[in-house]
Amino acid sequence: MSPHFLWSGLVILSILVCQVSALWPIPRTMSPGNSPVKLSSEFDIQIRFANPPADLRAAISRTKSSLFSGKFERLVLGRGSADADLLKDARTLVSLELSLAAGSPVRSIAEETNQPIEAKSESYSLSIPENNASATISANSSLGLFRGLATFEQLWYDYEGTKYTLEGGADINDGPAFPYRGFSFDTARNFYPVSDILRTLDAMSWVKLSVLYWHIIDSQSFPLQVAAFPELSAKGAYSASEIYTQDDVRRIVQYANERGIDIIMELDSPGHTTAIGAAHPELIACASKSPWSKYASEPPAGQLRIASPNTLAFAKTFFDSVATALPGTMMSSGGDEVNLPCWEEDGETQADLTQRNITIADALNQFVETVQGVIAAHGKTPFIKSDMVLTHNVPVLNDTVVVVWQTSEDAAAVAERNLRFIHQPSNYFYLDCGAGDWLGNNIAGNSWCDPFKTWQRAYSFDPFANLTVEQHQLVLGAGQMPLWSEQSSPENLDSIVWPRLAAAAEVFWTGATLPDGTKRVGENATSGTHALARLNELRYRLVDRGIQAIALQPKWCVLRPGECDLDS
Amino acid sequence: MSPHFLWSGLVILSILVCQVSALWPIPRTMSPGNSPVKLSSEFDIQIRFANPPADLRAAISRTKSSLFSGKFERLVLGRGSADADLLKDARTLVSLELSLAAGSPVRSIAEETNQPIEAKSESYSLSIPENNASATISANSSLGLFRGLATFEQLWYDYEGTKYTLEGGADINDGPAFPYRGFSFDTARNFYPVSDILRTLDAMSWVKLSVLYWHIIDSQSFPLQVAAFPELSAKGAYSASEIYTQDDVRRIVQYANERGIDIIMELDSPGHTTAIGAAHPELIACASKSPWSKYASEPPAGQLRIASPNTLAFAKTFFDSVATALPGTMMSSGGDEVNLPCWEEDGETQADLTQRNITIADALNQFVETVQGVIAAHGKTPFIKSDMVLTHNVPVLNDTVVVVWQTSEDAAAVAERNLRFIHQPSNYFYLDCGAGDWLGNNIAGNSWCDPFKTWQRAYSFDPFANLTVEQHQLVLGAGQMPLWSEQSSPENLDSIVWPRLAAAAEVFWTGATLPDGTKRVGENATSGTHALARLNELRYRLVDRGIQAIALQPKWCVLRPGECDLDS
Repeated sequence: MSPHFLWSGLVILSILVCQVSALWPIPRTMSPGNSPVKLSSEFDIQIRFANPPADLRAAISRTKSSLFSGKFERLVLGRGSADADLLKDARTLVSLELSLAAGSPVRSIAEETNQPIEAKSESYSLSIPENNASATISANSSLGLFRGLATFEQLWYDYEGTKYTLEGGADINDGPAFPYRGFSFDTARNFYPVSDILRTLDAMSWVKLSVLYWHIIDSQSFPLQVAAFPELSAKGAYSASEIYTQDDVRRIVQYANERGIDIIMELDSPGHTTAIGAAHPELIACASKSPWSKYASEPPAGQLRIASPNTLAFAKTFFDSVATALPGTMMSSGGDEVNLPCWEEDGETQADLTQRNITIADALNQFVETVQGVIAAHGKTPFIKSDMVLTHNVPVLNDTVVVVWQTSEDAAAVAERNLRFIHQPSNYFYLDCGAGDWLGNNIAGNSWCDPFKTWQRAYSFDPFANLTVEQHQLVLGAGQMPLWSEQSSPENLDSIVWPRLAAAAEVFWTGATLPDGTKRVGENATSGTHALARLNELRYRLVDRGIQAIALQPKWCVLRPGECDLDS
Repeated sequence: MSPHFLWSGLVILSILVCQVSALWPIPRTMSPGNSPVKLSSEFDIQIRFANPPADLRAAISRTKSSLFSGKFERLVLGRGSADADLLKDARTLVSLELSLAAGSPVRSIAEETNQPIEAKSESYSLSIPENNASATISANSSLGLFRGLATFEQLWYDYEGTKYTLEGGADINDGPAFPYRGFSFDTARNFYPVSDILRTLDAMSWVKLSVLYWHIIDSQSFPLQVAAFPELSAKGAYSASEIYTQDDVRRIVQYANERGIDIIMELDSPGHTTAIGAAHPELIACASKSPWSKYASEPPAGQLRIASPNTLAFAKTFFDSVATALPGTMMSSGGDEVNLPCWEEDGETQADLTQRNITIADALNQFVETVQGVIAAHGKTPFIKSDMVLTHNVPVLNDTVVVVWQTSEDAAAVAERNLRFIHQPSNYFYLDCGAGDWLGNNIAGNSWCDPFKTWQRAYSFDPFANLTVEQHQLVLGAGQMPLWSEQSSPENLDSIVWPRLAAAAEVFWTGATLPDGTKRVGENATSGTHALARLNELRYRLVDRGIQAIALQPKWCVLRPGECDLDS
């Protein structure tokens, strides 16, 4: 192909980009609309079935409020004014009707969110009429209707108070490629107020994420109030005002569930537990031992004394107490980065091993068996970090879901063990990489997972790489993007997360390819351009809705899709 | 040295760190205090000379307000409660007295800020008594007193409403190593509201920065309202609401000057000017020509037609109109990244060159001579970007200040030409590096100045590297940290700038070494630790005062200086 021909192709593409809807994540199938439709000032959303759940009614109310208060103008030269002529003769939409397919049970969004993840129905159909009829969303579940509302919200622009879409005539049939679409949030290295978590849940729901994987505690602090052991947070939190009380947790879980987001709590253990020692020093080996780098992946050192019957008893009650408070069907015991020298040099651990005539490997197996047993007894699916399985060969329950985190290369090895897993590879999805080292006295230090993971990098992830077709069914989620908070805090939460988490969310929703079967990025560079224009729109919508998402380009480029491409 | 001995040394150091004041930038000389002093609820700041200027009185009022409203607790285990016992018998400070040295003129902070940069007096002395006497700040100028107030503000902690310092008995004699301590701010790639600039100016004054170098316009947008050419912003700004009106500029300049900050406006030319073409297409060569990469460093292509007499006439009026509106004594014509193929392929430029029988190099020299002439005619010192001198060998006025930006290696070459300069090296100070490429279709792309510039990297800068002792006097500023806004916007302004700009500000204030003569970082790793503890405190103070500065470490580490060092 000659350079000239290629260039013409890009121009044509950029014209197309200006015309097609900028939905994010892109629907699985969509026949685009081709006429403008204005929102009537009388516009309302009607539920066409009896006894609709309160949380669906609340979601409708939020959708209406965001439609009418939205100030987002279309990203074209002239912004909204470019559409002024189009709007003169546009038809008016008076209502959106939500209906459930015949025979579908009427349940709340929260109830459906708390079903087993394999059983959830998130698909929906959405039609925008060209004439004066009603728009419709239909689904088999309240959760599906809620996903449809998220799509509907993204169709509308503002111009001087007029709300309109260019998608009159559009038909969308949509549903996720994977049920598990997650964000992992570390609230232990630095603390985040409840309001930050709620705001993040809202934004997650706008891009159809389904799970908040809450890495709530770690070696540095213990902000979780546990009913059975209130002393853990009383002594292990950074301060009395940096605790998630039981009421806070209930409120956050309820808020999430009403927005189609399940919460998995990770009680990371037996490593990453030093903060337990503030209240229970007897449970922790090598607590704050120096040099920390010999005993832990980061300061302070400290791990549960897994060989001690007291520890097992504690862990049982601990997991049981937390599991009891959570409605979801998934729970994680973490398990990353356990350190053998810590236990080898711990007198009490060695004495326990000798007395019980077991090895440290036996003790680790028993520990995992114990906590997985509690999780299973609560009817929840256990999650575990991949090194526990791959490095330590710990036997796990058959229905365990493995969080593959060290590198994307590890997925194949987990699949060979016939375990289900989610992708959370540090080489694609870690939001905290590339900002230098946070350790003192490491002037020229890099982050351990350099370089910075760009949105393009996350977007290029292939969830089926190195897997056989038979193994595809083991992928419960194309993944999860984590924020580790050593260098993050409420001050930069939005800007470090958004819009990169949205880029990943489209991978999680659509799967290995774009819905039309083309590769998302790579050789076919046009996909990248297409995504950037849509992602720019999503980013501006996030800002309009109160999320401090980072700009991806100068506004000059945003208003001229394709013109800031590498070779344009 | 044995590892054990080294480790002991670090422990001792970390104890010291907890005791010494965490002032940032560190004063040039300080004998630390050793007793607690509480702020009386009657505390007031008195001016001990006649007819004090209004902006000094306003600064005092802000200082009092920040002292009484501050909620920052000392960063030790237990936070403020750790000092509760100390405070029981602490003496009370009732007043701070500001005095000018005998014979000093009484002028406003703004007036003094607008003096020639070499003539400014920013030094001050500050004493905190151990007994019930008054604290004092003395200086030769209102500007010096203002710098002293910034130091005074950093001495105080809050504990349950009690404001106190541990520096009773401290004496500080302080002044800057360099008069030019800058932040360069690009408001053209993406626009920032006036309020963002004002907030940034406040934070800059807290760390004693002296110059906002305002890169206000560029090829992507022209947000500056110019009296002589109102059409430039009317047509070249992103929108009517993304313009800095003449009133906005006056307000910003006044706000800055009252805070000891001079404003240099950069009218970057002849490159980086495409947006001028929105109103005056006749002035721009190769406007938006494709492929942009042949004609410009980033899209869109476009440069002033420097060979045209019309352009020279425009530039003269343009610079004159902007210079007239600015009280400062410095102004920049930029000049980076001019592109020769743009002019070579521009028919009108070639015709002008032929008609006038000059080369493009002659035209460039004339252009720079013209704009520098206007700047000089306004009594201002001209600034220029280093490639104009080093790459294009353009003759400049003798008092020109060169902004050395491409790499720190260029400073020596500029010094050889016996020109004054400021350091703004992309390999140390660029805030925008390391977040991937913003060009479309460059999936695996890096930023051009990878990697991310950590605070440690900025902090390790040596302003005298590769210079002879005789050349040291040419360093007007150890430098300037720039924010280029291709991937920044109001949403991440604070988090991309702070606290990294503060790290640089200490280099700018203290010079090539720490005040005690030790190297700032490098072989002597203890300096890094010392700096980190103080910078952590500064960062928490910034957050307390409304700046969304990024966390440098988990709070666990912040509360335990040295314990998260690489080998602790």
